[in-house]
Amino acid sequence: MRLRKVAGALDALKEDKKYFIENPANNKGKWKNVFSNDNKIAVEIGCGKGDFAIGMANAFPDINFIALEKFESVLIRADEKALKEDIPNLRFVHFDAANLKEIFDDKEINIIYLNFSDPWPKTRHAKRRLTAPSFLDVYKDVLKDDGVICQKTDNQILFNYSIESFSQNDWYLSNISVDLHSEDRFNIMTEYETKKSKLGPIYRLEARRYKN
Amino acid sequence: MRLRKVAGALDALKEDKKYFIENPANNKGKWKNVFSNDNKIAVEIGCGKGDFAIGMANAFPDINFIALEKFESVLIRADEKALKEDIPNLRFVHFDAANLKEIFDDKEINIIYLNFSDPWPKTRHAKRRLTAPSFLDVYKDVLKDDGVICQKTDNQILFNYSIESFSQNDWYLSNISVDLHSEDRFNIMTEYETKKSKLGPIYRLEARRYKN
Repeated sequence: MRLRKVAGALDALKEDKKYFIENPANNKGKWKNVFSNDNKIAVEIGCGKGDFAIGMANAFPDINFIALEKFESVLIRADEKALKEDIPNLRFVHFDAANLKEIFDDKEINIIYLNFSDPWPKTRHAKRRLTAPSFLDVYKDVLKDDGVICQKTDNQILFNYSIESFSQNDWYLSNISVDLHSEDRFNIMTEYETKKSKLGPIYRLEARRYKN
Repeated sequence: MRLRKVAGALDALKEDKKYFIENPANNKGKWKNVFSNDNKIAVEIGCGKGDFAIGMANAFPDINFIALEKFESVLIRADEKALKEDIPNLRFVHFDAANLKEIFDDKEINIIYLNFSDPWPKTRHAKRRLTAPSFLDVYKDVLKDDGVICQKTDNQILFNYSIESFSQNDWYLSNISVDLHSEDRFNIMTEYETKKSKLGPIYRLEARRYKN
């Protein structure tokens, strides 16, 4: 993603006390308190400009959505959009997925969404892909035993790699799609997906630690 | 595949003593005798007009290829092509994959190729797909412990289904491709693939009973 630097984005985010969580590590193990309920917790890693998280939070009011984004200049756009609405089950966090265990306790998450993550197409960068084995190990810890990872991408290399990585690390795959938009499935789109789906197929998978 | 009935195809096949195996069940457990060597055995299930089996057998003279086809009117075309060459490591069998264990002993096969199998796109026909769990159980038996299944298809439904079926039945996936022809991989094409690859992507996977 090409990023335009947004001056003072982080300061602006900090002014939002409704959606933005300034010190997420303080909520480790007690995110349910943030939402004041025991509902399921879904985490989107890399929420970009927020279309998916906002759309999903509106569609599923009984699931709490925590949307992580490491680029504040993008996250501010998501935050601005959300501020036009009233979505009690949504929060934004300025955070890098590499440190997920700093802000989530073991078994704290029900669903992880990986939407159009950076494909890192060069083989020597494969370890940086969000479905590299080192990341899967972290997801395994923070996900509940019956948790699920849902991934979407338009990138062939990332999709091929992800299937192999999940399969070879004892995750079970289901609801595979090699052309999501050709199928009649419920699908909230990211802003990137809206553009890219005109150019080629969107790939999709679910991965679990148990057969389903 | 639209089949033109070829009168006397089976009679013509039986006249070929070089490639055609008339009574394959007689070779169960002793296919190595057919080739007079201990080389690996690869089985293509549904060889069509034979381009893949002939191309592979020529490319890998140290692997024995047994090409199965249930439609004699197609198999005769493969046989006619092969008869123009001298390929000692190739045999053709007129046979339905559903009865694989009638002609192969446990652990007799090193590689199974599933190329552009009938997708049976309707959900109620899913059990007929060659990657349905009942077929995977048979492959598990006739494959050696370090054996591999290599699948190619242009059909999204079959590919999605196959990944899920392998994954949910304890096979490990590798060398996935959602657009084989966009990659720089060695690939012998089937005659169907030659046509279809101009229209859309070719999907590919490998499945094993162990991690690799």
